[in-house]
Amino acid sequence: MTDSSSPSTVKARLPRGFADRGPAEIGATNSMLEAIRASYELYGFEAVETPFVEYTEALGKFLPDQDRPNEGVFSFQDDDEQWLSLRYDLTAPLARYVAENYDKLAKPYRSYRMGWVFRNEKPGPGRFRQFMQFDADTVGSASVAADAEICMMAADTLERLGIGRSDFVIKVNNRKVLDGVLEAAGLEGEGRAAQKLIVLRAIDKLDRLGADGVRMLLGPGRKDESGDFTRGADLAASAIERILAFTAARAPTNAATLDNLAAAVGASARGQEGVAELREMAALFAAAGYEGRILIDPAVVRGLEYYTGPVYEAELTFEVKDEHGRPVRFGSVGGGGRYDGLVARFRGEPVPATGFSIGVSRLVSALRAMNSPLVSGRNLRGPVVVLVLDRDQMPRYQKIVSDLRAAGIRAELYLGSAGMNAQLKYADRRGSPCAVIQGSNEREKGEATIRDLVLGAELAASTKDRADYLELRQRAQFAVAEGNIVDAVKEVLSRSK
Amino acid sequence: MTDSSSPSTVKARLPRGFADRGPAEIGATNSMLEAIRASYELYGFEAVETPFVEYTEALGKFLPDQDRPNEGVFSFQDDDEQWLSLRYDLTAPLARYVAENYDKLAKPYRSYRMGWVFRNEKPGPGRFRQFMQFDADTVGSASVAADAEICMMAADTLERLGIGRSDFVIKVNNRKVLDGVLEAAGLEGEGRAAQKLIVLRAIDKLDRLGADGVRMLLGPGRKDESGDFTRGADLAASAIERILAFTAARAPTNAATLDNLAAAVGASARGQEGVAELREMAALFAAAGYEGRILIDPAVVRGLEYYTGPVYEAELTFEVKDEHGRPVRFGSVGGGGRYDGLVARFRGEPVPATGFSIGVSRLVSALRAMNSPLVSGRNLRGPVVVLVLDRDQMPRYQKIVSDLRAAGIRAELYLGSAGMNAQLKYADRRGSPCAVIQGSNEREKGEATIRDLVLGAELAASTKDRADYLELRQRAQFAVAEGNIVDAVKEVLSRSK
Repeated sequence: MTDSSSPSTVKARLPRGFADRGPAEIGATNSMLEAIRASYELYGFEAVETPFVEYTEALGKFLPDQDRPNEGVFSFQDDDEQWLSLRYDLTAPLARYVAENYDKLAKPYRSYRMGWVFRNEKPGPGRFRQFMQFDADTVGSASVAADAEICMMAADTLERLGIGRSDFVIKVNNRKVLDGVLEAAGLEGEGRAAQKLIVLRAIDKLDRLGADGVRMLLGPGRKDESGDFTRGADLAASAIERILAFTAARAPTNAATLDNLAAAVGASARGQEGVAELREMAALFAAAGYEGRILIDPAVVRGLEYYTGPVYEAELTFEVKDEHGRPVRFGSVGGGGRYDGLVARFRGEPVPATGFSIGVSRLVSALRAMNSPLVSGRNLRGPVVVLVLDRDQMPRYQKIVSDLRAAGIRAELYLGSAGMNAQLKYADRRGSPCAVIQGSNEREKGEATIRDLVLGAELAASTKDRADYLELRQRAQFAVAEGNIVDAVKEVLSRSK
Repeated sequence: MTDSSSPSTVKARLPRGFADRGPAEIGATNSMLEAIRASYELYGFEAVETPFVEYTEALGKFLPDQDRPNEGVFSFQDDDEQWLSLRYDLTAPLARYVAENYDKLAKPYRSYRMGWVFRNEKPGPGRFRQFMQFDADTVGSASVAADAEICMMAADTLERLGIGRSDFVIKVNNRKVLDGVLEAAGLEGEGRAAQKLIVLRAIDKLDRLGADGVRMLLGPGRKDESGDFTRGADLAASAIERILAFTAARAPTNAATLDNLAAAVGASARGQEGVAELREMAALFAAAGYEGRILIDPAVVRGLEYYTGPVYEAELTFEVKDEHGRPVRFGSVGGGGRYDGLVARFRGEPVPATGFSIGVSRLVSALRAMNSPLVSGRNLRGPVVVLVLDRDQMPRYQKIVSDLRAAGIRAELYLGSAGMNAQLKYADRRGSPCAVIQGSNEREKGEATIRDLVLGAELAASTKDRADYLELRQRAQFAVAEGNIVDAVKEVLSRSK
């Protein structure tokens, strides 16, 4: 029951960590999404979408050994007591979808989707609890050619968005290589899963914390600027240095990097397998002409534990200013990797899969930072406003605005109750290029006045002694016969195109 | 923590009442949304979007006199104990948005938005717990010209979607008129709110239940086919007949209908006000040339209690078959009305507003039912598939597929592990127009084979003794030099355009 009759008022406020979006942001995001969609379609990926709600169990989001959902997700119980959660990414729901529709899908199954995801986390500046991702995944291919294809698609997509080849790089690594390094450092085995996750997340912070910060996270732990302490992996000094050396193993060419990696994994069979997969991918990049845009980089590990093979990240390399005004690389706008275990949760047999996720808001920010016409060049010109001076003549004004719309001109009738000056101010706030004015004088003559608001604003800002002032003033506001309003408005609109 | 290492499998299943969407539905919906957006932009409406989550209090969705959210909404508590809910429509969040940003917005404020909404209700066939609405609202205008504009916009939008003037009607009524009729029938006063809502919902079912069904709902109540009993409004027989006569007061012209309504409200001041507002709207419709497309119809009341003035509904009048194969009118695809009280909940002062909401899935179904090219004519041709016959030649195949994509041709490399016949079958399932095949023989000659899968399928279905069989067979599969693959594929694609 809507409580609309209550006399007490309710405070109007967004929930913490959520945001409204205005026309400029919606328009910019839609243009960008359209370009990404076109790129993914070219690669043979097809659209599929899942709902916002899944069984908590399907998301794998119960707390360990408890019947309570993880606090990081928004959860609620259905009327049959089953726990439901808002999706926290687009990968887990895709795994559910593929498992549920396995026999119907032509495999390998390439698909893409964009959508909002939700995190029940402490909100902060720039940290939202609802944000948009754009994912592409190939399910049912064990070949690293599938991973390579997605890396190339990521590169093509960034170029299609107008990001030059010198301004981005796709970095590729392989979890098996890291496993090999850990093994060679004496850190293998199932019992080490939690420790390994700490190692992954530590390496993932290299960009932000540098080698010294990561060294602390691999060792005893690290206290950040706010005083918060992050537990470390408690590795021995020799293991820490071995891992740090591995992350720094990138060489000028993919071939040289691969040789470094082969040395780093030593005799580890899993490590060697990872290096061989990276060699295969490097050959595909070279054959298709992507060398230089896609680099093997051991510093890329990705913080999610479910990756099982190749991992990759799209990084923008141009500089922007950070919050202290210092130049920093823009950084990651997306990433992904192979997750052969996620669909297996449902099917009990391994189903190979690999996928890439773009952080949509972050990519829009990047395009804004580089003044991309895709997001900033949109024509945000407001509608033509037809003023209402005599309220009893509404049908007449309505006809004018209907005629304008019928001619394809964005137009509106002023619907408020203010006077003429306030109506013109309203038209300015709306970004209107032009106003149509008809008072009783004009009406009796069968005329209307057209006011060019763009030219009018220019004139108001200029001096009256310029030579063409009078001529311009005549162009900025003039009378036309009622039957010629549409043509006159068209003429005014064509001036500022 | 993702529970991906668990050996026990989880059942892959959609939550009850939710649905996945495939490429055909997503494509059809997006084309339609784009057309609606263009129509709303032409009317000067601008995009705005709110998050999926609001404070339960802001939605007005607490149970009466309790601190517990209504069971009809999905709700959960934030870590500060405040109740949050998934939005159940797009109107309540807009009211919150406008109230929160009141001084920033140029008023009257015209905006549109499309988005998913959620109902925590018992799911059933065709009844989903997540569905999409497309809304347009004007806030800050008390003039019924705002309501009239939205009705005209609804008509223009349906036409833009290819629905002919004989296939739809926008029906308009006014809650004040109904109030006048109830008053004249002795049913006025605040204490009657619950009873009035029952009356509204009963009249809203006229289309589905007919006059006899509504008569029961206005009286003692009604048992439906499944045996469920719906409580009635318990009105006296004379009041029931008066209301039913009012709903049947539509005449051949708006002018004649208005005369009937003026008689039905008798001396009620509120009723007379409603009739005057409808007269004003009818004059605007006539001036702008919408007579015949927009009809005053007393049978339209809308089931929501928050409407305060004009209410309107977009109805498709062409016939489709119902579940029993009987011809029925397609019916409503959207509706709305004036809700002057919703923003007032936050601001403590009345803020006039009116808005229209389209049921997106229902409108897509309608366009499908009429074979609209907007939703069914989309080119769903699959990608060109490059077969992989020798796995050690992946880089070579990758180059072929990259060259095709660089030429703007939707293409993919086969990434599975099956043999040639299974790969061709995969290409068929994907709807591929053409396959590129290169075995060792062809490779040694520097060639590839192009197979036209469309022509190939035609030939397979025809007889071998047609005169042009051999010539066609040659066109359906032919060899080209490696350097000419892109041109050959282009030629094949141009055949089936």
